[in-house]
Amino acid sequence: MAAEQDPEALAAARPLLTDLYQATMALGYWHAGRAREQAEFELFFRGGPFGGAFALAAGLRDCVRFLRAFRLQDADVQFLASVLPPDTDPAFFEHLRALDCSDVTVRALPEGSLAFPGVPLLQVCGPLLVVQLLETPLLCLVSYASLIATNAARLRLIAGPKKRLLEMGLRRAQGPDGGLTASTYSYLGGFDGSSNVLAGQLRGVPLAGTLAHSFITSFLGTEVPPDPMLAPAASQGPRVDLAACAEAWLDRVCAHLGLGVQEPHRGERAAFVAYALAFPRAFQGLLDTYSVQRSGLPNFLAVALALGELGYRAVGVRLDSGDLLQQAQEIRRVFRSISAQFQMPWLESVSIAVSNNIDEEELTRLAQEGSEVNVIGIGTNVVTCPRQPSLGCVYKAPRFTLGAHAGSPLLDLLQLAEEAAPQAGQELRVWPRGAQGACTVRPAHVEPLLRLWVQQGQLCEPLPSLAESRAFAQLSLSRLSPEHKRLQQPAPYRVALSDKLQALVARLRAGES
Amino acid sequence: MAAEQDPEALAAARPLLTDLYQATMALGYWHAGRAREQAEFELFFRGGPFGGAFALAAGLRDCVRFLRAFRLQDADVQFLASVLPPDTDPAFFEHLRALDCSDVTVRALPEGSLAFPGVPLLQVCGPLLVVQLLETPLLCLVSYASLIATNAARLRLIAGPKKRLLEMGLRRAQGPDGGLTASTYSYLGGFDGSSNVLAGQLRGVPLAGTLAHSFITSFLGTEVPPDPMLAPAASQGPRVDLAACAEAWLDRVCAHLGLGVQEPHRGERAAFVAYALAFPRAFQGLLDTYSVQRSGLPNFLAVALALGELGYRAVGVRLDSGDLLQQAQEIRRVFRSISAQFQMPWLESVSIAVSNNIDEEELTRLAQEGSEVNVIGIGTNVVTCPRQPSLGCVYKAPRFTLGAHAGSPLLDLLQLAEEAAPQAGQELRVWPRGAQGACTVRPAHVEPLLRLWVQQGQLCEPLPSLAESRAFAQLSLSRLSPEHKRLQQPAPYRVALSDKLQALVARLRAGES
Repeated sequence: MAAEQDPEALAAARPLLTDLYQATMALGYWHAGRAREQAEFELFFRGGPFGGAFALAAGLRDCVRFLRAFRLQDADVQFLASVLPPDTDPAFFEHLRALDCSDVTVRALPEGSLAFPGVPLLQVCGPLLVVQLLETPLLCLVSYASLIATNAARLRLIAGPKKRLLEMGLRRAQGPDGGLTASTYSYLGGFDGSSNVLAGQLRGVPLAGTLAHSFITSFLGTEVPPDPMLAPAASQGPRVDLAACAEAWLDRVCAHLGLGVQEPHRGERAAFVAYALAFPRAFQGLLDTYSVQRSGLPNFLAVALALGELGYRAVGVRLDSGDLLQQAQEIRRVFRSISAQFQMPWLESVSIAVSNNIDEEELTRLAQEGSEVNVIGIGTNVVTCPRQPSLGCVYKAPRFTLGAHAGSPLLDLLQLAEEAAPQAGQELRVWPRGAQGACTVRPAHVEPLLRLWVQQGQLCEPLPSLAESRAFAQLSLSRLSPEHKRLQQPAPYRVALSDKLQALVARLRAGES
Repeated sequence: MAAEQDPEALAAARPLLTDLYQATMALGYWHAGRAREQAEFELFFRGGPFGGAFALAAGLRDCVRFLRAFRLQDADVQFLASVLPPDTDPAFFEHLRALDCSDVTVRALPEGSLAFPGVPLLQVCGPLLVVQLLETPLLCLVSYASLIATNAARLRLIAGPKKRLLEMGLRRAQGPDGGLTASTYSYLGGFDGSSNVLAGQLRGVPLAGTLAHSFITSFLGTEVPPDPMLAPAASQGPRVDLAACAEAWLDRVCAHLGLGVQEPHRGERAAFVAYALAFPRAFQGLLDTYSVQRSGLPNFLAVALALGELGYRAVGVRLDSGDLLQQAQEIRRVFRSISAQFQMPWLESVSIAVSNNIDEEELTRLAQEGSEVNVIGIGTNVVTCPRQPSLGCVYKAPRFTLGAHAGSPLLDLLQLAEEAAPQAGQELRVWPRGAQGACTVRPAHVEPLLRLWVQQGQLCEPLPSLAESRAFAQLSLSRLSPEHKRLQQPAPYRVALSDKLQALVARLRAGES
C-alpha cells in the first residue's frame, strides 16, 4: 500500500514511534510462528473525560495516513537489530523489511462522533505482529486528538453558538506536533479557528491573529513612518496623513471622554497607526498595554475614527488582562456613546475579543446573558487540558468478538459480530452495563456505530474533510440529550449488551471463577 | 545559513509553526520601515514549576536546529499571502522569501542548567521582523522541553540515584512529537531511558521494554512452538526442550510454594516460554495478568529455573497493578527462598520493575528505605505533567538591556550589558529581587550564566550531546543547596540586580508613576 503524495507527510508519525516492547513482542510472536495469525484489537477509553459523560472521537485521519505510509526503512530495521539480541534470526528482520499494512482492516467511529466509555473508537484487524506494532502509534494519534476535541466541545457548549472561540495555545503545547494536533482538533470540536499558521496551511483551519504587546511597546512615538499617507477606502479622493488625522481625532475623543490629551501613550498610538497603515481594512487594537481607559481605548478610537473618515471600518479590540467581562461592558458603552457623538454607527458593534488564561468557569462568566464579549481566545486551558491531560485510552484484544454495534441517541448496543443488526421499530431485549437485569427497547432509528474505513489496506471511502467532521460533531452533540450533555455530574449514557453477548460474558465469568 | 544534513530534520519545527499575529506584526514592522531594526528578546518563566524553586533549562538543541533551517519556502510565502490583505505590497513577500537567521545571535543557559524565575533561558538578538517571527516556535520548543526535564529531575530527586527510572508515556503524549520531546527531555532530566524507539533512534536515548498483557493473553497454552529447543548458554551440550523443562520445574516450584500444579495459567506459561525462546539472555516476566502469587510468579520461576539449568539468567519481572511496594517485598522473599532451595544464587537479585500510574507520592513510597523495587516505569505523570501542564514561558523585549550575568550556587546576578562581570573574592553590593534593600556578597566563584551559542547565524561551539547535558543537569542539581532543592515549599533562590541595573529600574519606575 503506497502512500499517495501527501502534503502532510512531514507531520505523519513514523513506524518506530512505538514502545520497544511492541518490537520485543513482535520477535516473540514471530519466534512462536504466530506473526501472521489473524488478530483483532479494539481501542477505547474507560471513563468519560473531564467528569463528563461523552467524548468526541477524533484522530482517524491521522491513523489512516499513518497506516498507509507504514513501512520500515532499512535504517529502521538496522536500528531495531541494534537493540534486539545479537543472535536474533536474520529472517525476523527480513520479515520486518517486508512489513506493511496491506492486510490490515480498520473499522472506526466517524470523526466527530460521540464516543462513550467502553465502546470502541477503533477496531483493527490484521496479522498479529503488525497490529501489535500499531498499538502505541494508534493510541498516541487517537487519545490526544479525541481529548482535545472533547475539551473544545465542552468549551463550545459553555460559550453557546454565537461567541467566536479561537485556540491560541501553540506556545503551551507539547512541542510542534502537540500544537498542530491541538489546533486541528479544537477546530473539529467546535472552535472557530486558531492562531497556528501551520494548522491553517496543512489542515485548512481558519486563522486569526492581530498584534501583541511587544509590537506596541516597541514604538516610542518618535518614529517617522516611511509613508503615513493612506488613500480612501473607495480609492477616490486624495491620500491623507493618517497619523495627523488620528491626532486631530484624539483631541475630540479626549474632550468627549473627559481625558487630558497628553494621557494616551504616544508610542501606543504610533503602533496603532503603523498597524492601521498595514491593515486599513482589518484594523484591531490591543488595549491593555498601558491603561485601557486612559490610553488604549482613546488611542484606538482616534485611529478608528480617522480610518472611518476615509471609509474604513475598524474590526475589533482585544483585552488580555484584568476583569474581562466588566471591561467589555464599559468599552461597549464608550463605543455606543462615541458612535452617537460622531455619527459613526458601525463603531457600536466593533468586535470585543478577550484572552488571558480563560477556563470553563471564566468562560461561563464571559458567555452569560448580556455579555458584550464577542470573541474569546483560549490557550493553555484548551491545549493542555489541565483538568485531565490524558484520555487514558487502551488497545485490547477483545476476549469475545465484538462486532456490529447499533446505536441511537438512546443507547449504544454491543453485539457479537455474527448477530444481525437490530431493526427500527422492533422490540429487543438488551442488558445495560452496570445494571442488574435486562430491559426492553424499541428503537425508532438504528445506526451502525463503526464504519469500515480501511479494508485489506485499501481506503474504502474518502475521509470527510475536517470542516465536515466539525459539522458532524456539532450535529451529534445537538442530538444528545441534555442529561448526558451536562458538563458536571451528567447521567451516564447507556451502553448495553445484546442477549447473546450477555450470555457469552456470563459464561466467561463463570469459567473464570 | 544552510542547515546541514540533519537526520532529525523531520522532527524539526517549520517556520509557519507560529501564531498568525507574528506574521501580521511582521507586516506592521515592515510597513513602518522597521523590519531590519536591531531588537532583542528574552525568554523566561515567572514562577518555578510544580511549586518548586528551580527548573532545568532544555530545548536549546531544538531551537538551534530550528534557527539553522529557518527559511520560508515559496509555498509558505504563498500561504501567508493568502491570509494577509490582498493589497499587501508584493515587496513584503520578497522580504519574507529572502529571510533567514543569518543575522540572529543567541545566548542561552547551557542545556541542563538550573533556571530560576525571571532569569532568561534564552536571549535572541537580530532584525526585529525575524526575532518577532521566532517568538512562538522558540516558546514552543523551550517551554515543554524545560517543563518535562524539570518534572523528570524532581522524580529523580525523589527516587534517589540507584533506582532505574524509565519513561513510558508515548501513548499519553500530545501526538508524535510530544512523545519524542517527552522521551528526550525526561532522559536529560535524569531518567535512565525510555520505551520510545524513535527517541532511541533519533536522540540516542537508552531503550527499555519487554512484553505487555496482550502478549500473554494471546497464548492459550495449546499452541505448538515451531521450535521449543534451546541450546545451553555456553553453546556446549545438547539442545533442550524448554517447554518440557519448564513443566518439570513447575512441579518443584509449586511443591515448594504449596500451590497446586494446575493453578498457574497454562497460556501465561506458554507466553513466558515463547518469550524466553526469543530472549534467552534477557528473559523477563510480566506477573499480574492473572494472579501474581498463584500464576505469574510460579510460571516465571519455572521458566527462569529451566533457563538457569541451561546457564541463562533471567533478568527481571514487572508488576503493573495492585500494591506495588508490598508485592515487591513478597516477590523478593520468594526469590530468596527459591534461590536457596534450588541453589540458584543469581535468582535472589533478579530485578523487580513496577509501573501503573506512579506519581510523586507513590514514587516516594516505592523509593523508601528497604524497598525491593529496582526499576520504576512512569508514563502519564511524567509526560503530561498533570500538576502543571505548562511552564508558561514568555518572550519579552527587555525594557532595560540585560547583559552579562554572573552566578554561583548562592545567587544569580543580573547586570547591564556594559558592566564588567564580578570577580571572585571581591565584595560587591547587590539588590536581591523582592527584598527592600541591598546586601553585600563576596562570591568564591563566578560563572557567566548565558553562553553565546549562535552568532550572526553561525554556531559558535558544538552543542553538548544529550548524555553530556544529562550529566551536567545532575551536576548542577548536586550543587544546589537542599533548601532550594526541596520539592515542597522550598526557599526561593535569590536573583539579584547589580547597583547600576537597580538604579536604572528605579529611574524607570519613577518615570512611570
